[in-house]
Amino acid sequence: MTCYKLIYFNMRGRAELSRYIFAYAGINFEDQRVEWKDWPSIKNTFPLGKLPVLEVNGFLLTQSLAIARYLAKKAGLLGGSDLATAQADALVDNLNDFTISIPWRENDPKIKAQKIDKLFQSHLPKLLDYLQRHLGDREWLVGDSVTWADLYWHVCFTTFSALRPGFADRHPALCALVKRVEGIPNLAQWIQNRPVTEF
Amino acid sequence: MTCYKLIYFNMRGRAELSRYIFAYAGINFEDQRVEWKDWPSIKNTFPLGKLPVLEVNGFLLTQSLAIARYLAKKAGLLGGSDLATAQADALVDNLNDFTISIPWRENDPKIKAQKIDKLFQSHLPKLLDYLQRHLGDREWLVGDSVTWADLYWHVCFTTFSALRPGFADRHPALCALVKRVEGIPNLAQWIQNRPVTEF
Repeated sequence: MTCYKLIYFNMRGRAELSRYIFAYAGINFEDQRVEWKDWPSIKNTFPLGKLPVLEVNGFLLTQSLAIARYLAKKAGLLGGSDLATAQADALVDNLNDFTISIPWRENDPKIKAQKIDKLFQSHLPKLLDYLQRHLGDREWLVGDSVTWADLYWHVCFTTFSALRPGFADRHPALCALVKRVEGIPNLAQWIQNRPVTEF
Repeated sequence: MTCYKLIYFNMRGRAELSRYIFAYAGINFEDQRVEWKDWPSIKNTFPLGKLPVLEVNGFLLTQSLAIARYLAKKAGLLGGSDLATAQADALVDNLNDFTISIPWRENDPKIKAQKIDKLFQSHLPKLLDYLQRHLGDREWLVGDSVTWADLYWHVCFTTFSALRPGFADRHPALCALVKRVEGIPNLAQWIQNRPVTEF
């Protein structure tokens, strides 16, 4: 049996998509959460000093999206054809581009708020328009079945909502997609029982 | 027969990895290069106003790495197992993280040079150490056959060398890998005959 250990900080952050996929597929995994106080002393034991890391039978896999894509393959969440798989990849990358453009490390709270406001006002509506057009009147973002792109939209929606509640109110189809993801029983259970963290 | 049109600016940049994969696999494609003067008037006809875009029988695919991964699948360059595929994904993402951290859009040439110097002195050696350790004494970065991670290393090596020649001189195994990629006849032919651009 394959043993999975997902190592990350005690937050949703860049590991939550993989946790969603584990939950969706009903795959057992060890959800190891590193405390910030312990991080400096163990940082150098991880490839490039970065988390998340997925241990697969002792082998270390790095990079959050590479990890999630590997698990999405196991869970049947990549998409129904090569082109659908590529579409899901592209949607994940579009959401990721926005996520990493958020000034997470800005120390000045006033400057940080201004930068986030600007980003949410200038860039996010374009992305939301694009995603909503892409979704159209279908149930899921790619093809006619759920993919990891739908799960990542839920992860991002949760994070973006923590920063600016109501950010997607003008995009009702995308809000309805969030509800559909939450309606998947295994995910509903994970979301209800996971550790509560701000991000 | 599938018709491929790759649309990008007249530079290697974020489309070159896909061009390498087309060349490697001997797949015909239309290499459409947009002139900067024409870009403002056509920008909004592309999803999210971004390039590269790959047209596959008229369908538009976005995001450079999603495009390249789609083509790598066709070319048999993803890796020999799910875990190898994930390793190649992670290596590509590690190289990409560094590439996008380069201050491409900094306008002040003096500040730009300082920022690039700092990045190449502080962050790049760690990445190169990691890649060289990962490669070990094997021929290719993942498993025992060439993957798109090897091709991306060549693309990145070329770009980084244009910025700071000799940047990898202390990493002979990685320089030898560059030579091995260049030794693949289809790639040698592409590299020799492609349009000459700075980046």
